[in-house]
Order: sequence, then structure tokens, then C-alpha cells
Amino acid sequence: MNQVYINDAKKHVGEEIKIKGWLFNIRSSGKLMFPEIRDGSGIIQGVVFKNDVSEKVWEDFKNLTQESSVVVTGKVREHPKKPNVYELDVNDVEIVQIAEPYPITPKEHGIDFLMTNRHLWLRSRRQFALMRLRSKIIGFVRNFFDSRDFTLVDTPVLTPAACEGTSTLFEVGYFDNNAYLTQSGQLYNEATAAAFGRVYSFGPTFRAEKSKTRRHLTEFWMVEPEVAYMDLDGVMDLAEEFITEIVQNTLAGCRQELEILERDLSKLEAVKSPFPRISYDEAAEMLKKGFEAGEIEKPFEYGNDFGSPDETYIASQFDRPVMVHRYPAKVKAFYMEPDPADPTKALCVDVLAPEGYGEIIGGGQRMTSHETLLEGIHNHDLPEEAFDWYLDLRKYGTFPHSGFGMGIERCVRWISGIEHIREASPFPRMLYHMKP
Amino acid sequence: MNQVYINDAKKHVGEEIKIKGWLFNIRSSGKLMFPEIRDGSGIIQGVVFKNDVSEKVWEDFKNLTQESSVVVTGKVREHPKKPNVYELDVNDVEIVQIAEPYPITPKEHGIDFLMTNRHLWLRSRRQFALMRLRSKIIGFVRNFFDSRDFTLVDTPVLTPAACEGTSTLFEVGYFDNNAYLTQSGQLYNEATAAAFGRVYSFGPTFRAEKSKTRRHLTEFWMVEPEVAYMDLDGVMDLAEEFITEIVQNTLAGCRQELEILERDLSKLEAVKSPFPRISYDEAAEMLKKGFEAGEIEKPFEYGNDFGSPDETYIASQFDRPVMVHRYPAKVKAFYMEPDPADPTKALCVDVLAPEGYGEIIGGGQRMTSHETLLEGIHNHDLPEEAFDWYLDLRKYGTFPHSGFGMGIERCVRWISGIEHIREASPFPRMLYHMKP
Repeated sequence: MNQVYINDAKKHVGEEIKIKGWLFNIRSSGKLMFPEIRDGSGIIQGVVFKNDVSEKVWEDFKNLTQESSVVVTGKVREHPKKPNVYELDVNDVEIVQIAEPYPITPKEHGIDFLMTNRHLWLRSRRQFALMRLRSKIIGFVRNFFDSRDFTLVDTPVLTPAACEGTSTLFEVGYFDNNAYLTQSGQLYNEATAAAFGRVYSFGPTFRAEKSKTRRHLTEFWMVEPEVAYMDLDGVMDLAEEFITEIVQNTLAGCRQELEILERDLSKLEAVKSPFPRISYDEAAEMLKKGFEAGEIEKPFEYGNDFGSPDETYIASQFDRPVMVHRYPAKVKAFYMEPDPADPTKALCVDVLAPEGYGEIIGGGQRMTSHETLLEGIHNHDLPEEAFDWYLDLRKYGTFPHSGFGMGIERCVRWISGIEHIREASPFPRMLYHMKP
Repeated sequence: MNQVYINDAKKHVGEEIKIKGWLFNIRSSGKLMFPEIRDGSGIIQGVVFKNDVSEKVWEDFKNLTQESSVVVTGKVREHPKKPNVYELDVNDVEIVQIAEPYPITPKEHGIDFLMTNRHLWLRSRRQFALMRLRSKIIGFVRNFFDSRDFTLVDTPVLTPAACEGTSTLFEVGYFDNNAYLTQSGQLYNEATAAAFGRVYSFGPTFRAEKSKTRRHLTEFWMVEPEVAYMDLDGVMDLAEEFITEIVQNTLAGCRQELEILERDLSKLEAVKSPFPRISYDEAAEMLKKGFEAGEIEKPFEYGNDFGSPDETYIASQFDRPVMVHRYPAKVKAFYMEPDPADPTKALCVDVLAPEGYGEIIGGGQRMTSHETLLEGIHNHDLPEEAFDWYLDLRKYGTFPHSGFGMGIERCVRWISGIEHIREASPFPRMLYHMKP
């Protein structure tokens, strides 16, 4: 008899099937035992009736401990009362291993303990739902770009230079030289946009930030589209269409996961076009009024970047993501195109998620002028020779182009509604945590 | 008028459209000029007839240099003689930038020069086809696993320990400690297979090998499936189905790219099930006979791993990939399950590509016994405490499981039929090459 996966059990009602997995939980009541079996595709409740099984099978189930590995045979039937729920009338079990006392029991555990046992913690119901959700969201992201004829072009992890300053770089010994772990694929994406028109990169990126917030990891996956001949308005449209599609697909395809995570679906259902688009100046004005009305503790200083409480306040004014554009050029990266209407501003955009989840997307239009770009590199004290190839793009058919970046863990954190970003990564890397 | 992409021009026959791109090439003949325009989606030939355009447009085209950025307006028509080829009757051009003399001309260039100019080289026809092929193959790979209900679980790049020995690791400064760049996601995949049943990881991996061969990169993307309760036979079936599907999808969906690369399609068409499966002993016997027949220069020493010429000879005996299983345990990693029929052999498999492209897949069944695994770790002089979490998997419901790894650049190299692996990566990293 071949193995059947639990999420396929519904196709086998009335048939005898074999499930290969682990004992998730078990309870008993007289002549009945109810083992919950999981196999990675789902969890099914078995029913073991003493009169129907051999003495050995009955004793075997009595001896099973949490997470023991087992092969269970039984007949599938619909739950007598719950629709779309299936049970297994067990008639045999083969024990692969009786597990040692499992460290993660149904009681509460501290976060340090759970993080140290991340390799086991992933087996629990909530973490399972989160990782399935992550996997599906990544699929939606790739599909969004693939279906629109973007070419996936992987950018390197090992890079000779920093993209956005040097203070938060991880350094690697590279034979007799040094290399740095990438912070963003963007500079490379600009080169490939000139070759393929519409491109995206999607891979791990790194920030050596010594911060311990709920929204920072040192290693995270980032998706970064870049489009030749696209301007700021175009990239705002793209980001809006992108977020809308991801959220709608999640609502349509991840109900079970969202249910386990107890996500308030009404918050996600509100994520529809059009998104509000406000300028930095308008956002600053909003913060000023908020402070005057006593809704914000500290006044916002015009000209600075927004802090986390500022972002939360701005986002709280809307029921869907808000796009803030045209920040002061000096708080943004050197490669941003200046706004022709006010060159002290950059043609950039940040997308702030609702409910205080903060920035999920940063992007904008890139500089086209060789001269201005070179100036920017000098003003930021970056080594010109590291950027010679990047400057080339402004010599050999320079072109307006725009793009954005979205960290997948921030997106998963927001959509799933979890408090800390560490649960959005299978094996999170943080300041004091790198194992397993 | 909105931008139309060149690969969509066929939908606009008889209409005036606007193309935004670069001048790929231009030739002229009296009152006619034939600019080839590329926009990243394709290349279209324009026809500029002096009598039909303004003096300014005519002069503008005369001034255009290779890779100048332009917005060209014209009417689409089918090529009078070639079916499925479209041309543009040009009536206007807007010059975005006249490019400086472009370094990569239609003449031959040395490889060092091209590698230094990788950011520009990608615009040329062959490299364009290769990267499009890579992008599509990656799509086929993901689709293979997604459609079979595998969960994508990303494994970390920053790791505290080595998977396969310590000699080829890149070391990273991680705040006050050190970390290493991952060589494989496998150990993590084994943990996630216990949580999700069928999993795969797909991300960059690293080997600090000081080799300068045609099939090594220091950074490459690897896809690694892992399946709970699967044995060696099962994983050989999976690998065969996987390779067959990738090649068939490539043949069906990448004709244009394969044509530009002048790939011999008959070689790919031969890649069909069943693949020959031979044991290490049978392969060694094959090499012995080959040596005796004078078809191999050096005799193969039984018990060793195969070298590149050995692999080429074995593969040359077949018209499709060959699976070699059950190598001596001592030439394989510590985590391989011993063959119960002969414990000096490991339940492993390497898949060798035809035409001398060498190993493209390595995999096998993993050890289930805690005791034997611990012995293996000690025998390989690996630090036990680094593997405590990995050993846990053998304490809490150990289970038979198998998986494999395939480097995407090796796969692209084989399918596209190129000589050197460096062209299979957008920005290849090698011993003496890390820029751009």
C-alpha cells in the first residue's frame, strides 16, 4: 500500500490508506484512543477502538510519546459532525521510533528556549502555518513578475562594494582579498534592466545592524524589480498593483493558515486600490498636527527621515498601505533622481503598511546623469573606482528607470499579523542569535 | 502613445507604436537606414526611408552610435518574406542619449575584457539568450516542486558550522563572532522535512575552492529537495522525473534561446525516462574495461571518487543522464545511510550529464540512527556541539528520508551546451574574479 498524504485523505473516503508521520498528540477514553498524526501536509485524528485492533496495536499506541515516528494504517471517513474534516479508523501501526521526551510540550515556553529549538519549533501548529504562508507568498511574488514578463536575474551575494554606505556591512575573507555581503541587488538590477528591460532579483540580503527591534533581521530575503524607462509614478503604480495582488491571492489561497494565525481578515480585505499617495511634506504636516493635537509624544523635525513612531502615526490615518513620496534627497541614497520641481527632494517612495507594521517597500527613480551621479558618489564619500561599472550605465545609453525593494519577512510579518519578524524566517539571524 | 514591448509588436500590425530602448546596430543604403532596436524583450528592425521622415529624424539616425538610448515611433508590419518576423516603418525618433563609443563591438573580444565588462556584455545576443534561459529554467525548477506540494523553506546563508568539511568555507565576521557562508541547505532541509514532509530550499551557496575549472564557481544557486519517508530508489525516481521535466519544458518553451545558442536539440530530445542506473562497482568495472581497451589514459583506482575524466568516460557510454549509486562510504559525506547489503557503501546517487558535462546532481538517503550519525561526526573530526540540533532529529521521531542537490549553473551550462560555467551566472564569482 502506498503512502497517502493527509491533505489528500479526502480523496480516499472509505478506502484503507497508509500515513507516514509523527504523533502530534494523543488522548484516550476507556476503550478508545484518539491519536493526532501529522505528516507535514496536515494533521488527521485517528480513532483506535480496542475491540477492533490487536492487543499489540493497542499497546503500541499506549507507548507512543509525542513526536514518535509512525506508519499508521486505517480507513478514511468523514467526521460525523464537522464538514470537510476527515478521520482515520486505525487498524494498524508500525513504530519507527519512540521519541525521547520532547522538549516542546503544549505548555508555554520562553522565546529563548524556542529559538534555540527552532529546528523543532517549526513542527508546531503556528510556526507550520507561518512557513506555509511564507512559501505561498513567495510563490505569489514570483508569479506576479513572471506573468508580467520580467526576467529573473540573480544578483551576487559576494560584492566588492557597499550599496548604501559601509557601516552595516558584513565582511568576508575572499582568498587574499575581502568581499562584502550584499545589502541590495539594486545596482546590479540597473545594469540588467538595460539588458532585459524588466527585471527582478530575489535573494538573501544582509545588514550588520546592531539593532534589536521587532522588524530587523541581519539576513533577509528581498525582492527587487527594476524597469527601464519607468518613472516614479510608474513604479508607484507597480508597487500598488503588486501589494494588492499579493494580499488578494493570500486571502484567496491561504485561508487555513490565516485562520490558525487568527488574523483579522477585515484588515487585509481593506487592502485595495487606490492607495493614498502623499508627499513627505504632507506627511510632515500630518505629524505636526498630530503633535499639536497631543496624539504624538515628540515633535517631528522637518528634514529628517521618519522614525518608527512617525511611520506608525502616518499609517494609522489610513486603512490601507500609504505611499509617501519625495523625501529630502539628503536622507536618501546617492542614486536617487532629484525632483525637477524641487531638486532638494528625491523622486523616491516608501510604502508604509497599515496597523503599525512600518515600511515594507522602498523605491524610486534612479539618477540618469553621469555628472550628477558622480557628484553624489563624491558627496557620500564613496570610492569612485568601486562604482566605475555603475557609472558606465550613464555613459552607454543612459535611460530613466525605477524600481523598488521589498523584504519578504516584513511582508509576511504584516500579512500574518505577527508581532516579531523572527517568526517570519525559518532560521532567523539576529544580533545574538545564529543557531541552529 | 504608450510604450509597446518588441515581443508584443506582433499584436500591433498596422498600428503606430512607440518603442523605448537602445540602438543595437544600424546599416544604411542610400535613402534607407535599417536601425536594429532592442528593448530587453527582443530586437526589431526599423526601416527609415529618407523621403518619409523629416530632415531632423534622418540626421538623428545618422548620428546614433551603438547603444544610444532612443524612443522610436513607427508602424508595425510583417516582414515581406520571413514569417513571424516584424519590422517597424519608422517615422520619428527621440534621442535620450548618444552613447560614448561602446567598448563591446561586433568584433571578437578576449574573455578577461568581457568579464570586466559583464554589466555591458549581458546586452549581447548570446548572453541575453543564456540569461533568459536561466530565468526560465529556474521557473521550471520551482514549478516542478510547487506543483507537487513541496514547501519552499529558505535555509540560512550565515551558518555556525560546516556541512561538508571545513577546508572550503568562506568566513564572515559576525559582530563579535565568526560565521560561515553556507555550502548547502541540506542539514536544515532535514529539519524542515520533519515539519513539512516534502520541502525544498533554493538559494545561493558557496565554496571557497581554489580551482580554476570550467565547472566551478565560488558562488552558485542550488536547489535541494528533501522528502520524509523516501528511500534511495524514491529519490532516484524523483531526480529522473525532475531532470526529464526540466529538459522537456526547456525544449517546449525556450526554442528561441536554444536557437541563438546553436544548441544541438537532438542531444536534449534524447533525455527521456528511463535513465540508466548503475552501481559504483559497475561504473568502476566500466572504467577498467575502458582502460584495457585503451580508451582511457590513466587506470581508475577502485575505492576512490571519480575524477572529471572518469565521469566523462562513464557518461559517454549513454545518450542520456546516468545515475551512479552506492559509492564507497568513505568518499562521501558523514550523513549518508550505509547500504544494509554492504555497509562499506553509502545509499547515495550522483547523476552525470551526457556529453561530458559531469555531475549535475548529488543526493541520497540520510542516516537515521543517532548512534551511527554521532560516530560519523567523530570519525570526520567534526565538532559534535555544532551538530547537536542535527542530532536531535534522530532523537525525536527519527525517520528515513532522502534528497538531492542540483547547482543551477551546472544545469544551465549543460542544457545550453556552453563550454564554461561562468556564462551561466549573471555576475559570476571565481577565484580571481569578483567585479562587477
